[in-house]
Amino acid sequence: MNPTLNNVALWGEGLRLLVEISATAAFALSGVMAGARKKLDAVGVCVVGFLAAFGGGTLRDLLLDQRPFFWVRHVELLWGVFALCVLAMLFLRSRHFPITERAMQWPDALGLGLFAATGVHQALLLNMPALVAVLMGLITGVFGGVLRDVVCNEIPTAFHDHRPYAVCAFAGSWVYVGLWQLQAPGWLALLACVGVTAGLRGLALWRNWQLPAWRL
Amino acid sequence: MNPTLNNVALWGEGLRLLVEISATAAFALSGVMAGARKKLDAVGVCVVGFLAAFGGGTLRDLLLDQRPFFWVRHVELLWGVFALCVLAMLFLRSRHFPITERAMQWPDALGLGLFAATGVHQALLLNMPALVAVLMGLITGVFGGVLRDVVCNEIPTAFHDHRPYAVCAFAGSWVYVGLWQLQAPGWLALLACVGVTAGLRGLALWRNWQLPAWRL
Amino acid sequence: MNPTLNNVALWGEGLRLLVEISATAAFALSGVMAGARKKLDAVGVCVVGFLAAFGGGTLRDLLLDQRPFFWVRHVELLWGVFALCVLAMLFLRSRHFPITERAMQWPDALGLGLFAATGVHQALLLNMPALVAVLMGLITGVFGGVLRDVVCNEIPTAFHDHRPYAVCAFAGSWVYVGLWQLQAPGWLALLACVGVTAGLRGLALWRNWQLPAWRL
Repeated sequence: MNPTLNNVALWGEGLRLLVEISATAAFALSGVMAGARKKLDAVGVCVVGFLAAFGGGTLRDLLLDQRPFFWVRHVELLWGVFALCVLAMLFLRSRHFPITERAMQWPDALGLGLFAATGVHQALLLNMPALVAVLMGLITGVFGGVLRDVVCNEIPTAFHDHRPYAVCAFAGSWVYVGLWQLQAPGWLALLACVGVTAGLRGLALWRNWQLPAWRL
Repeated sequence: MNPTLNNVALWGEGLRLLVEISATAAFALSGVMAGARKKLDAVGVCVVGFLAAFGGGTLRDLLLDQRPFFWVRHVELLWGVFALCVLAMLFLRSRHFPITERAMQWPDALGLGLFAATGVHQALLLNMPALVAVLMGLITGVFGGVLRDVVCNEIPTAFHDHRPYAVCAFAGSWVYVGLWQLQAPGWLALLACVGVTAGLRGLALWRNWQLPAWRL
Repeated sequence: MNPTLNNVALWGEGLRLLVEISATAAFALSGVMAGARKKLDAVGVCVVGFLAAFGGGTLRDLLLDQRPFFWVRHVELLWGVFALCVLAMLFLRSRHFPITERAMQWPDALGLGLFAATGVHQALLLNMPALVAVLMGLITGVFGGVLRDVVCNEIPTAFHDHRPYAVCAFAGSWVYVGLWQLQAPGWLALLACVGVTAGLRGLALWRNWQLPAWRL
C-alpha cells in the first residue's frame, strides 16, 4: 500500500470512529429522555440509554456474525455513554426536554446517516447482496430507537410517526451501495450517504412531509 | 448417490423452497394487517410484515448459529415480501380484513406446520437433542408472530388466544422427530408434520377447542 | 494438575450446575406467575416461564457467541422447567401468589448473584474487558426478567421498581471481576459475588432503599 492510501485508510478509520462516537451520544440522550418520560428509575434510564445507543449496531453485528462487537473493541464508548447518562440525570430537567430535542434533531439525523453507512459498509465487506446491505444499514440506524421504545412499552416512533425517518436512511443506504458498486472512494460514499440521509430528513421536517398512511 | 435419490433430494429441496415462500407470504400478510390495525405508517407496516415473515426463521438461525440466513441465500424472498407489502397497502382495505383473515387460516396453518418442520429439520441436522429440535420448530413457526405483536405493543396472540396454535406445532414437531429417528424418508416426515399441525389446527378451530386456562 | 485442584475443579463445576438449576427454577416460577397475572393461556404461561428462566443466559451466550447453549448441554434443565410450569399450573392458585413471592425473594436474590457470576465468569474466560464482563453479568441476571415483562406487555420491573435490583448485581459483578484479577480461587469469587449481590438486595428490601429517581 502506498503512503497516501495508507493515510486515507487511517483517516477513514479515525473518521468512522468519530462518527460512531457523536451518533452514539445523540442516540443515548434520546434513550435517557424516553426513560425519564416513562418515570423509570436510575437503572432503567441508563439501560434505555445504552439500548438506544448500542442496540442497532449490536443487532447488526449479531445478524452479520461479527465479533468482537464495536463496544468491546472500544470500551471507552461504554464508559462514555455511562458518564453521559449520569450527567444527564444530574443536570437535565424535564423543562429542558423540548429544547434538547430540537437541538438534537441535527446530530440525530447525521447519526442516522452515519450509522446506516457503517451498517451498509460492513454488510458489503462480507459480500452481502445489495438489498441485505441496505437492510443492515436500516437496522443499524433505526433499531436502537426501536428497542428503546419496545422496552418503554411504546409502539416504536419510527413506525407510527408518519414523518419520514427510516425512509431517509433507506435512500441514503442505496446511495452508499451505488457508489460502492461504482468503486467510488470510501469517504465519498460515506459523505454521500450521510448527506442524502440527513438532507432528506431535514427537508422532511422543514416541509412537514408525511408518509402515506394506510387508507382504511 | 444413485439418480433416483438425487432426484428426490432435488425435489425435496424444491419443495422446501416452495414451502418457505407460501408460508412467508401468509405470515407477511398477517403482519401487514396487524400494523394497519395499529395505524402504523407505511414504514411501520412494512417492518411488521417483514418481522412476521422472517422473524421466526431468523431467530432460529441465530440460535443455531446458521449463516447465511435463508433470506440472504434467497434475496428474492425479501423482494417478494417487499412487493407484497406495497401491493397490500395499495389494494387491501380494512373492510377486507375479516375475509382476508378467514382466507388466510389455511395457508397460515400450513405455514405453521411447514415452518416448524424446517426448524426441527435444521436442528436435527446439527445433532441437537429431540426437545431442543422441537423448541426450534416452535420458535420458527410461532416467534415471527410473537415479534409482530411485541412491536405492535400487544401481548402475543399465540400466548393469550386460548385457541390451540403453538400446541399444534408442538405435536407436529414431535411427529417429525419421531419419523426422523425411525429414519423415515424426509418427504414423509415433512408431510406428516405439516398434516398433523394443520389438521390439529383445523380441528381446533372447527370444534372450538380451548386451551386450559389458569384456574385462578 | 494435582489431585486437590482437580477435586476443587470438579466440585466447582458441580456447584455451578447446582447454582444454575436452583436459580433457573426461581426465575421460571416468576415467569409463570407473571403470565398467570396477565391471564395468558397454558402455552403463554409456559413460554413466559421459559423466557424468564433461560432468556438472560441465552442472550449472554448469543452476545459472547458461545455454543452450544447451556440448555442444549443440559437438556434436563428444559424438561425440569417444563415440569415445573405444568406443576405450577396444576397446584398454584392466585391466592398463593403473595406467599410464593415472599418465599421466592431469597432464591431470587441468590439466583441473581449466581447468574451474574456465571455471566462475568464466561466473559472473563474470553478475555473481555472488565466493564464488558460486568455487563454480561447484568444481562445474565436481569434480562430474563426483562424479556418476561416485555412479552407480558409491561415496562420491565427491573427498570421502574425504584428498589435496587440490577444495582446489586452490578456491585456483585465488580467484586467478581476484582477477585478474578487478584487471581483469587474461583469458589471464593463466586461466593463473594453471590454474597454481595444477595446481601445488598436483602439490605435494600429490609431498609426499604430507593433508587434515585429522575428529578423532574
